[in-house]
Amino acid sequence: MRRSFMLLMALVLASCLSLPVLADEGMYPVTDLHGIDLRAKGLKLDVKDLYNPGGVSLIDAIVNIGGCTGSFVSPDGLILTNHHCAFGAVQAASTPQHDYVTHGFLANDRASEIRARGNTVRIIDSYRDVSADVLGALKEQMTPGERTRAITARTRAIVADAEAVQPGKRAEVAEMFAGRTYVLFVYTFLRDVRLVYVPPRGIGEFGGEEDNWMWPRHTGDFSFLRAYVAPDGSPAEYAPQNVPYHPKKFLRIQPRGVAEEDPVFVLGYPGRTFRHRTSHFLAYERDGRLPIVAELYENQIATMTRMGISDRGVALKYDARVKSLANSSKNYRGKLQGLHRLPLIVQKRDEEQRMQAFIEADPVMKARYGTMLKELGMVYAGLTDHALEDALFDNLRTSSAVLSLAVTVVEGNRELKKADLQRDAPYMEKNLGRTKDNVRLSLQNFHEPVDRALFADLLTRMRKLPAGTGGIVMDSVFRSIDQIGGMERWLDVMYGGATLRTPDAVFTLMEGPADVCETSADPFVRLARALAPVFAQRRADRQETDGTLTRLHADLVAVKMAFQKTSFIPDANSTMRLTVGRVRGYAPADATVYRPFTTLRGVVEKTTGVEPFTTPERVIALYRQGLFGRFVLPESKQLPVAMLYDLDTTGGNSGSPVMNAAGEVIGVNFDRTFEATINDYAWSEEYSRSIAVDIRYVLWVTEIVGGATHILRELGV
Amino acid sequence: MRRSFMLLMALVLASCLSLPVLADEGMYPVTDLHGIDLRAKGLKLDVKDLYNPGGVSLIDAIVNIGGCTGSFVSPDGLILTNHHCAFGAVQAASTPQHDYVTHGFLANDRASEIRARGNTVRIIDSYRDVSADVLGALKEQMTPGERTRAITARTRAIVADAEAVQPGKRAEVAEMFAGRTYVLFVYTFLRDVRLVYVPPRGIGEFGGEEDNWMWPRHTGDFSFLRAYVAPDGSPAEYAPQNVPYHPKKFLRIQPRGVAEEDPVFVLGYPGRTFRHRTSHFLAYERDGRLPIVAELYENQIATMTRMGISDRGVALKYDARVKSLANSSKNYRGKLQGLHRLPLIVQKRDEEQRMQAFIEADPVMKARYGTMLKELGMVYAGLTDHALEDALFDNLRTSSAVLSLAVTVVEGNRELKKADLQRDAPYMEKNLGRTKDNVRLSLQNFHEPVDRALFADLLTRMRKLPAGTGGIVMDSVFRSIDQIGGMERWLDVMYGGATLRTPDAVFTLMEGPADVCETSADPFVRLARALAPVFAQRRADRQETDGTLTRLHADLVAVKMAFQKTSFIPDANSTMRLTVGRVRGYAPADATVYRPFTTLRGVVEKTTGVEPFTTPERVIALYRQGLFGRFVLPESKQLPVAMLYDLDTTGGNSGSPVMNAAGEVIGVNFDRTFEATINDYAWSEEYSRSIAVDIRYVLWVTEIVGGATHILRELGV
Repeated sequence: MRRSFMLLMALVLASCLSLPVLADEGMYPVTDLHGIDLRAKGLKLDVKDLYNPGGVSLIDAIVNIGGCTGSFVSPDGLILTNHHCAFGAVQAASTPQHDYVTHGFLANDRASEIRARGNTVRIIDSYRDVSADVLGALKEQMTPGERTRAITARTRAIVADAEAVQPGKRAEVAEMFAGRTYVLFVYTFLRDVRLVYVPPRGIGEFGGEEDNWMWPRHTGDFSFLRAYVAPDGSPAEYAPQNVPYHPKKFLRIQPRGVAEEDPVFVLGYPGRTFRHRTSHFLAYERDGRLPIVAELYENQIATMTRMGISDRGVALKYDARVKSLANSSKNYRGKLQGLHRLPLIVQKRDEEQRMQAFIEADPVMKARYGTMLKELGMVYAGLTDHALEDALFDNLRTSSAVLSLAVTVVEGNRELKKADLQRDAPYMEKNLGRTKDNVRLSLQNFHEPVDRALFADLLTRMRKLPAGTGGIVMDSVFRSIDQIGGMERWLDVMYGGATLRTPDAVFTLMEGPADVCETSADPFVRLARALAPVFAQRRADRQETDGTLTRLHADLVAVKMAFQKTSFIPDANSTMRLTVGRVRGYAPADATVYRPFTTLRGVVEKTTGVEPFTTPERVIALYRQGLFGRFVLPESKQLPVAMLYDLDTTGGNSGSPVMNAAGEVIGVNFDRTFEATINDYAWSEEYSRSIAVDIRYVLWVTEIVGGATHILRELGV
Repeated sequence: MRRSFMLLMALVLASCLSLPVLADEGMYPVTDLHGIDLRAKGLKLDVKDLYNPGGVSLIDAIVNIGGCTGSFVSPDGLILTNHHCAFGAVQAASTPQHDYVTHGFLANDRASEIRARGNTVRIIDSYRDVSADVLGALKEQMTPGERTRAITARTRAIVADAEAVQPGKRAEVAEMFAGRTYVLFVYTFLRDVRLVYVPPRGIGEFGGEEDNWMWPRHTGDFSFLRAYVAPDGSPAEYAPQNVPYHPKKFLRIQPRGVAEEDPVFVLGYPGRTFRHRTSHFLAYERDGRLPIVAELYENQIATMTRMGISDRGVALKYDARVKSLANSSKNYRGKLQGLHRLPLIVQKRDEEQRMQAFIEADPVMKARYGTMLKELGMVYAGLTDHALEDALFDNLRTSSAVLSLAVTVVEGNRELKKADLQRDAPYMEKNLGRTKDNVRLSLQNFHEPVDRALFADLLTRMRKLPAGTGGIVMDSVFRSIDQIGGMERWLDVMYGGATLRTPDAVFTLMEGPADVCETSADPFVRLARALAPVFAQRRADRQETDGTLTRLHADLVAVKMAFQKTSFIPDANSTMRLTVGRVRGYAPADATVYRPFTTLRGVVEKTTGVEPFTTPERVIALYRQGLFGRFVLPESKQLPVAMLYDLDTTGGNSGSPVMNAAGEVIGVNFDRTFEATINDYAWSEEYSRSIAVDIRYVLWVTEIVGGATHILRELGV
């Protein structure tokens, strides 16, 4: 069935000059693997080898680790994932004295493994369709906002019930098709994760933001972590006496790697795709959200980079944030290039015209869905109009850490007085520890001059919005800035009176009685209090929009199924997916062919000695001596570094094991090409390529550069 | 013999990891074609077909056109060359009202062909070895400066004699090996050149500076001009009654183009290479001259670009200068990348060590050449020390047009009073017309705010030189700047008193009596007068250095011939050269393969609508309709745009016809790849690739876009 849909898409796309025929690719939900012929795709595995609810299968070795994917690669809970997925934890453990970010980290024994703060591990336990249950919460006369809130309340209750039945597990209801299908996933949840081996930044992040989203790539983007549990085997918070977790299943490493055109597959947690959205959404992305947010982020990156140049301590504090913003803004630039170059919107419009004609040909359909596309157009036109305002308000909360803490205090103080299930998610008991960790991390990375500069820039931008857009709260902020004699003096007062400078100060106010918070003289707390109703109103508006979109998108799926006489793969939604394909280069531009393997020679060619193109001297020396061990490409005898394949991945697939036909690990997925950022809207056989660090480079770096022979022993290599 | 040298070089280079084996390539002088087996290289031609002093050959169709190369492609003197070679003339003929730069130019008949100001045409008439004559001027006891001046005086006399014998011809003595071999070339010299067809800038300069020195390339860098002579057939200055020149030979066009791996060759006028220089020269380039000049030019480009943004008239005035500076600075950046990446200097040092051992093994050699390499090292160390000072003084004359005119006035006033043969070259009778044209062009492109900004920047840089470097003249300039209250006020006075604002003002002073010039109150003329002895001293210093280098380089050739037991091809020196090779892509970096043809699809992909990636709407429309006529690539049915081949070219080869095995034109050479900027120091089979516009694109643009069917008729296509 999927095949027919893809075939249709292929026909649609083949009619355009710049887009190639789509292959039979997709992000298959594990809830829906039964129809797939893996042998026909070149794998030496059956579906049961991948997913076997009763027994043990590869999926039991796949973990969701803080939004990334990872895999167990030893019986003692050793996890292989990306360097960039562990980066926040490495940064948190680093100081200018112990600069693990720059020099890497190696634990020579278990006792030396250090806490990977902020990292948790989830492993799929079971799943169940709960669509009827979720949709049963909806009533005909509900407003769109009420529908959104009803779905949230019901899914939350389902999750709470599931977690009550299975203490220690984590449950999650995933929306597969908005307003139509919902699946309850139950996960084993591990909270004690530690760093085992992290390569130096000159390897793990070689090329940095400049090479990010790019091929040819030369980044050794991998790291090893380990999951720990209580001595009795139960999940537990970090404690020194905890012991390594023994997974039901771990993946075997194939040190010989793969070759061009070999079949490969990935199991992982792709985050979000938007392939079922209409042309209106793509136009909103292209003309509204993406360019605005990209520019905003680029500006903030420039500020943080500038202020970190002369102070390595400051640079370290903002490192993770700069990376995160740069990652997004470049992704957006890639998408914008794709949206401008490829005729996606034109194709969608064509399809929608035909769909509209199909609807209007049937009186019943017309009565029910006649205005569906027009309504979708109106929603996205509205979002496009408010894109700048939305981006600035979203950013208001995050640009200044101290304002963000004040908002947390005000929200937390309010939410913590409610029953657990009624609270906003960050303040529910099960999430509170994480929220507090974030507060601590935020204070650890706080540097007032940078915070001030980001806050000032955002306020300056907000002031340029049409009058009244910010409401009376922002108007009064702008008035006080003028009254006090300008931004700098106003900020002097704000930061001069800021008290939320330690975790205790934050938690005391957050967990204290309501009046303590209400009477606080801290100017940021007062601003957060004034902003609370503004944020509440914006949230209600968004729920209204979301409710409308949920209804319209449910209708859209119904119409498309009738129109195309088929069903489809749901968009990625951070649930486990399978994607199967081959190791393969591509032609990103006229007269340009990219080969599917890069080598250490390319690392040396790119090395300038200037960040982000610095390489540890030991690596250069080993290259000059040709000491590649047994990890070479058979033909060129060069050491492979990164590899390219035509799998269908997106953000969240970072750290996914790339496996060969036998299910052995031959790479660690970490990125897509610039052209493949468009994956989120459409997969293209010609342009969609994902990037892994070759397992041979992982092993070479770990053994020969890092000297961690004990890890290779543990891997059984 | 050449073959042995190349073989040796190949062995030297093959010993390094990053450089490939050298092929049997080179820039063969036409004075030295007899030893080459063209058939073995895949050509269906003999040496006599290329060069036949008694009869007619391909070389009679090749012209040197203002530093570029071009070729006659019709019996009526039609010349095919690059867009960028005609650009200065197009710019000179353009106004904001008639913007030929942007929209292109087409003469629908002969009467509509307009003057290509600044362009002259030279065609080889004969050549003769004059080494003994030139070197006869040297005496043992001469200082290096005296040697330089003696060689200049003798070659000038030889040229004057040759031109006296053959009135109307131009003669030139080319130094083949410095201090060893000299050849007298006599050229037919045509001075009336006109524009026939120039494509719009969106074609002829598509990709602009961003794509310059880059592959994949999508520039339609060609134009058609025509040479005219007096009605009696003799060379003449521009005059409306002149008639088209009938060349002895014109090249045939092959509208079917060529395919990958087909043999091709180029005849042209490559400017300068430095392959026989030592490691000391390369180190001077890498550490001294290139980075300093690149930075200086990049800064000047930024100034001119910034000031041209709001005023198209200003932008037009500085267009050619910006292009020229950007072309150089990017070339320097490419060379710097090559010098940093490739082990050229290390290889040369190795070779020099072995050569030194060879010298010291023979007492006679040691007595004569023992210190040769050390002396070369000292000369270049001195040049490296003074690289910044030299760059700034060289630029002082050119950065401000008004100072440059003042220098011309002062120099011309002095030189014009001497006998013709004693004058500096620009003021000799035969060059005076050109010098005056340059004065007119310079005034036409003058815009005071830009001129001021460039002049101010240069003075600010000079002021930062170590005290006294500028001598008392610059010290007194800096003093007056301080006395008057700063740079801006000083510039107010300078420009306020500037009188050289018309050609007449310049020529009156230049050609007038000495006292008129000496008493001029024009502050720029006064500054130029003060600077005259400074420039004279610097010139004497340079003659001294050149004399030393001439001696040392002559010795170096002698030693190398003994050391390697062979002779070599001389470095390029703006004389006609042949290079033979094949149509071929390359791998510029790890995992990257470049194919040898680009297509119109790539033009459309690159088109953003923002300069330099704008494309005429007609081209886009023709692409969408697939209207490529008969000019397609046989396999893909796409229209080829540019092509790549492994010929050995350098600057001056621009506009060279690229010919197939039968000597038919299949492309117009216009650039090299970024990696091939290193050609000037060493040719590499792996990296040295040159770029042509494919003849099929030339014909398609001319006929289908330009509508110039009469030109295709004239071409016999």
